[in-house]
Amino acid sequence: MPKNLSLAQHKFYVRVRREKKVRDAERLFIAEGTRTISELLTATPQSLLALIQTEHSDFPTVPSEKVFIASSKQFSALCDTEHSQGVIGIFEQPTVSPQTLFKTLEAKASSVVLVLDDVQDPGNLGTLIRTAAWFDVDAVIASGGTADFFNPKVVRSTAGSLFALSLYRSASLKGDLASLQKIGFTIYGAAMAGEDFLTTSFSAKTALVIGNEANGISEHVCQYLHKEITITGNRNKVESLNAAVSAGILLSRICLHK
Amino acid sequence: MPKNLSLAQHKFYVRVRREKKVRDAERLFIAEGTRTISELLTATPQSLLALIQTEHSDFPTVPSEKVFIASSKQFSALCDTEHSQGVIGIFEQPTVSPQTLFKTLEAKASSVVLVLDDVQDPGNLGTLIRTAAWFDVDAVIASGGTADFFNPKVVRSTAGSLFALSLYRSASLKGDLASLQKIGFTIYGAAMAGEDFLTTSFSAKTALVIGNEANGISEHVCQYLHKEITITGNRNKVESLNAAVSAGILLSRICLHK
Repeated sequence: MPKNLSLAQHKFYVRVRREKKVRDAERLFIAEGTRTISELLTATPQSLLALIQTEHSDFPTVPSEKVFIASSKQFSALCDTEHSQGVIGIFEQPTVSPQTLFKTLEAKASSVVLVLDDVQDPGNLGTLIRTAAWFDVDAVIASGGTADFFNPKVVRSTAGSLFALSLYRSASLKGDLASLQKIGFTIYGAAMAGEDFLTTSFSAKTALVIGNEANGISEHVCQYLHKEITITGNRNKVESLNAAVSAGILLSRICLHK
Repeated sequence: MPKNLSLAQHKFYVRVRREKKVRDAERLFIAEGTRTISELLTATPQSLLALIQTEHSDFPTVPSEKVFIASSKQFSALCDTEHSQGVIGIFEQPTVSPQTLFKTLEAKASSVVLVLDDVQDPGNLGTLIRTAAWFDVDAVIASGGTADFFNPKVVRSTAGSLFALSLYRSASLKGDLASLQKIGFTIYGAAMAGEDFLTTSFSAKTALVIGNEANGISEHVCQYLHKEITITGNRNKVESLNAAVSAGILLSRICLHK
């Protein structure tokens, strides 16, 4: 039978939920709900540290020593109960060093990378990761101002795809864009007044930059773009497309027309 | 100088915020934040009933008799203050009768309509409307199980595009799909195992059906589809695309390749 969650464990996981610095220092994150947890377990079962439930129910493939029972009060401090269905998982963050990432990308003849320049909305970030996973993008590289990959809302919006591609938080987006250029990537930026994306022929190694929801791609990043591309639309009706929808349309073009 | 918001007004608008049945009966909705309000005002200034602020600041084009000042406590009961920047607008819901809508659509030689079959997430619904507005879609037709067009979260996600196209809540999606067929529309459904959308040639009058986030298009609606279409992706990495992202990709194909 599974043990009860201890007070010390509970206190620690509440901090993992609430504080980015604790998540980063401990390299942990929380996933909510049967579906998301199952999908993460399918990808990398060994990354599960603990499965916390309000009532014991069998979770295939999870050894019982990793299962803990929490009171409803304890549980509600650990998650957004609306989405959790009485079960959350504490997982280890997937990690990739910049050295490994850029070496892998250099060795590839063909690759697509998604670069996020201060995408701030957690729902957008999660949906961007999910979309990138669907289109077999190799990596998502995020600027310091982008939301945390392991924020609970981001994790929820990824629909279990967090382990499906390399996630890398850049210390210097400019430096990393320069590195991508050196290893053969052409850098495209989603912009309001660029070339019609339908007329663009994308290179075998493509990095697509998506900017901040309100302000677009920042000026210091723009100088690293080889080309700005645009999705034609009716700007009299609405100012812009949502960031994740734009990325989806551009990635479908880049990845499916190869 | 603008008047203070009365207790009776406040009580009424709180109900408009919280209760769909009050919004529907009174045909009102609440929009939050300078940007969304400005965009709605540009589209149809006469639909503004009241502008409620915590501090008086000049809002060009709004006559002072429509401006009311609320205390912070009053104000916080009227909106999600995180996004409101101290200003909300009470607007009249745009309306279109089914007779007018179908007559207009019948008269068109070329038209795109987005049909939503139980899209439940307000953020997804708002983003779907925004995306449809960008691509000049003529109407969004929603099933009874779809989130309310005028839910505050939906309004926020539309980015001010609520007045940009006809929004119609269907009493019977089956009946309305049959009507669309009669007036020359071909009905396409976004599905997991349909024809690759890149090989589909869409007709001049196209209705695109997007299903529920978890369950897809319901069985009783499927029989009205002329064709199921699919966006190719890696299902080992993630089960599906987000509903708004799928619609964006399909609408970009339908609307930009004409």
